[in-house]
Amino acid sequence: MQHHFSSWVEIPAGSDFTLANLPYGIFSTETRPRRVGVAIGRQILDLQAVAEAGFFDEIPFPKFVFAQPTLNEFMAQGRPIWRAVRVRLTELLSADFSDKTSLEPALVPQAEATLHLPIAVADYTDFYASEYHATNVGKLFRPDQPLMPNWKHLPVAYHGRASSVVVSGTDFHRPRGQMLPPNAETPEFGPSRALDFELELAAVVGRDSALGQPVSTAETDEFIFGFVLLNDWSARDIQRWEYQPLGPFLGKNFCTSLSPWVVPLEALEPFRVVGPTQEPPVLPYLQTAAPGHFDLTLDVFLASNEFPETRISRSNAKFLYWNFAQMLAHHTVGGCPLRVGDLLGSGTISGPTPDSLGCLLEMTQGGKTPLQLGSTERRYLLDGDTVTLRGFAGEGGRRVGFGEVRGKVLLGLEFRV
Amino acid sequence: MQHHFSSWVEIPAGSDFTLANLPYGIFSTETRPRRVGVAIGRQILDLQAVAEAGFFDEIPFPKFVFAQPTLNEFMAQGRPIWRAVRVRLTELLSADFSDKTSLEPALVPQAEATLHLPIAVADYTDFYASEYHATNVGKLFRPDQPLMPNWKHLPVAYHGRASSVVVSGTDFHRPRGQMLPPNAETPEFGPSRALDFELELAAVVGRDSALGQPVSTAETDEFIFGFVLLNDWSARDIQRWEYQPLGPFLGKNFCTSLSPWVVPLEALEPFRVVGPTQEPPVLPYLQTAAPGHFDLTLDVFLASNEFPETRISRSNAKFLYWNFAQMLAHHTVGGCPLRVGDLLGSGTISGPTPDSLGCLLEMTQGGKTPLQLGSTERRYLLDGDTVTLRGFAGEGGRRVGFGEVRGKVLLGLEFRV
Repeated sequence: MQHHFSSWVEIPAGSDFTLANLPYGIFSTETRPRRVGVAIGRQILDLQAVAEAGFFDEIPFPKFVFAQPTLNEFMAQGRPIWRAVRVRLTELLSADFSDKTSLEPALVPQAEATLHLPIAVADYTDFYASEYHATNVGKLFRPDQPLMPNWKHLPVAYHGRASSVVVSGTDFHRPRGQMLPPNAETPEFGPSRALDFELELAAVVGRDSALGQPVSTAETDEFIFGFVLLNDWSARDIQRWEYQPLGPFLGKNFCTSLSPWVVPLEALEPFRVVGPTQEPPVLPYLQTAAPGHFDLTLDVFLASNEFPETRISRSNAKFLYWNFAQMLAHHTVGGCPLRVGDLLGSGTISGPTPDSLGCLLEMTQGGKTPLQLGSTERRYLLDGDTVTLRGFAGEGGRRVGFGEVRGKVLLGLEFRV
Repeated sequence: MQHHFSSWVEIPAGSDFTLANLPYGIFSTETRPRRVGVAIGRQILDLQAVAEAGFFDEIPFPKFVFAQPTLNEFMAQGRPIWRAVRVRLTELLSADFSDKTSLEPALVPQAEATLHLPIAVADYTDFYASEYHATNVGKLFRPDQPLMPNWKHLPVAYHGRASSVVVSGTDFHRPRGQMLPPNAETPEFGPSRALDFELELAAVVGRDSALGQPVSTAETDEFIFGFVLLNDWSARDIQRWEYQPLGPFLGKNFCTSLSPWVVPLEALEPFRVVGPTQEPPVLPYLQTAAPGHFDLTLDVFLASNEFPETRISRSNAKFLYWNFAQMLAHHTVGGCPLRVGDLLGSGTISGPTPDSLGCLLEMTQGGKTPLQLGSTERRYLLDGDTVTLRGFAGEGGRRVGFGEVRGKVLLGLEFRV
C-alpha cells in the first residue's frame, strides 16, 4: 500500500499537501481565471485543465463544475461523485501513473497562484462545542455558573454572518462600535480595545436537506464535503455590551477568515477518535455510534513588527465535547434545511492546559494577565498584529494539513458621519 | 395630478395594488417560467414580456434581469434604474397611456399565477426594534429588568437563518426539539407546545456595501429596495431552553415566511412619519435627520377548522422605536458588509394597547391568559391553524398594500432515528 502515498509530483518533507490529502480550493493565475484546483506538494493541479484533457471522462458529471469560481457546483454533485473524483485523482497523482506528460501542463506552482474564498457561503452557523472554552469564558462572565444548564444537553450555537466570511490573507480594519466603559452607565463609541481571534474548525456542507426533514447523526457524513480552519475574529468589548438577550452581533460579524483549502472528509477518516464521555447522557437524537471526533493538531501563531511569528497555542480538535455529527443533527432536528455551501464552525477549540487555549480572552483571563512575547506583551490584538492558524494530522507521506488561515489587523477606519 | 393614480387596468375598491404601489414579485404560470412581475389590481404585469415588447428600451440596463427567478439581478442595477423603471411603469399603466393594445398580452390574472419567494435571501438579520414588544416580553422573562441596559442605546439584533425563509402559502410542520418542562431539571424532546407567530416588517437590501465601510443613516435609503411583511414563526419553549448565552437558534430557524410582493421604498415615501422621541439621545452614528418611520397599518388574522378567519391584532409600523435607517447604519458600523438580497426584519411590531400586540406570547402573557375565539381559545398555535398578516397605508387610488403572508401549521413530523 505504500505506493498509494507516493506521488510523481515532488512533495517536500513536512508538506500539508500529500497524496493522502488532496484538498480542493479555488485559484487563479494571470492566464487561468478562477477555477477548481487540488493542492499537491508545492503545486496546484488545475482540475479544469485535467477535465479538458479527458481524464475525468469516465465519471458521469458535468465537467463545467471545475470552471466555476466556487466549489459549490462541484459539491452539489454529491458524495458518489466526490468519491469517484478522489479515487481518480489518487490514480493520476500516484508515482506509478503512466501518462505524467499529459498532466504536467495542468500543474501550477502555488507561488504563482492567487487563492480565493473556496465556497459561496450559504448560511454560516457557529457552535460553542468546546467544554474547556465554554467553561473558561463562562467563569469570566458568570463566575457562579460558568456552564449554562443547557450546555451538556445540546450543542449551543448561533447564526453568524455569511457576507463577512473572507479567505486567508484578507486583512481587515479594527471594528468600531459601542462599548460600555468600566463603571460607566452610558456607552461610548470607538475602535474596539478588546480585539481577539478564535481558533475553530468548520465543516463545509455539500448537500441540501429539505425543510422539515431532520438529518440523523447516522446520515450526517453524507452531508459533509470537508473541513476548513476558521478564525472567528471577535471584539469582546462590543460583544459584552450588545449580546443580551439575543446573542453576538457586531462583536462577531465584521470579519471571519477561512483557510483556502477544503480538506475532504475522506482524508480525515484515518484520524477519527472517540470523543469525551458525555455525562449526563444525551437525548437519542444526539447519540452517535461511530467515533465522531478527529485527532487534528491546531496551532495559533502571532506576529507583529515587535516580534517574529511565535506559536502561542497548540490545541486539538479531539478536545471538543460535541462532534460534527451531533452539531448537524441538532441543527436540522427542528426542520431547518441545510444547503450546499453552509459553513458550520465548531466554536473556539480550547484544550485542558494553559498552552492549549483558543483565544486571547482565555489566555489573558479577559485581559488581566497579559501574554508575554519576548520583551513585550499582549492583552488583546494591536493594529499590525497578524494571527495565523495552522492544523494537521499524521506525518510524512500521510500527513493531512489545512495550510493556514492568516489575517492582519489594520488601523480602525475613520467613521464618516 | 389625479390622473397619475388612475390606471387603464381595473383596480377594484380596496385593492392593495394601485398605481401608487407597483410592487415587484416573482411569478410563473403554465406557459411563463419564473420571471419578474408587478402587481396591479387583480393582474400581474409580466416585465419580461414588457421588456421584449421594447417598452424599456430607453432605460440603460440589461433586460435579462426580468427573466430571472429572483429579483436580485434587477435590484443589483441600483437606485437610478429602479427609479427609471418605476417612472416608466407608471406611464405604461396610467389611464392616458396610448398603446394599451401592445401591453395587454403582458397582463396575467393573479388567479392564474403562482407566486414565488421574491428574493434569493443573502443574509437574514432580525432586529428587536419595538419597545412595546421588548418590554412586554422582557416582563415575562425578567420581571425586575424588562429592558436590558443596552436596549435604548442600540437596535438589538441577531443573525437569522436564510435557508428557511419561504414565501407566503408555504405550510410547515410544527418543529420538534428540546424543551425544559416546568420544574424539571433535564430536558425532554418532542413537538413544540408553544408555537407562535411574529408580526414584522422587513427591508430588502438592493445594493452591496464593502467590508469595513460603514453606511451612514443619511445613505441608507440608497440601499433599501423595498419592504415585505415577515412572519418570524417562533417556538417559545425551544427558544427558552436554548437561548442562553448565544441567542435564538432552533426556536426560530425552522420557518420564516415572507409576503410575495416587495413594495418599493418610493411607494412608501408618502407615509413617512416622525418616530417616537428617543431618550436618552442616541450616539451620533444613529441620529437621523429625515422622518424615518412609516405609518403602515399591520393586521394579524387567525383561522382554523373551529372558527373563521378572525382579526386578532391591529398594529402599525410607526410604533417601532428604532427606524430602518438606524438599523442599517448600526448593522454596518463595525464594517459588516451588506449584499443585494439581504433581509432585515424589524422584530415583532407591537403597539401600546392590548389589541395591537404582535405575537401570542404577548397577547396571552406567556400562555397564562388565553385568547377567546368564539367558543374556543388559543394560548399558542394548534395544528391546522392558519396565520395571515396583512399591511397597508393610504386609501382609495392611493392605497399601498403588501397583500398577505400566510402560513399553516402542519402536524409535527415523526422523527426518524
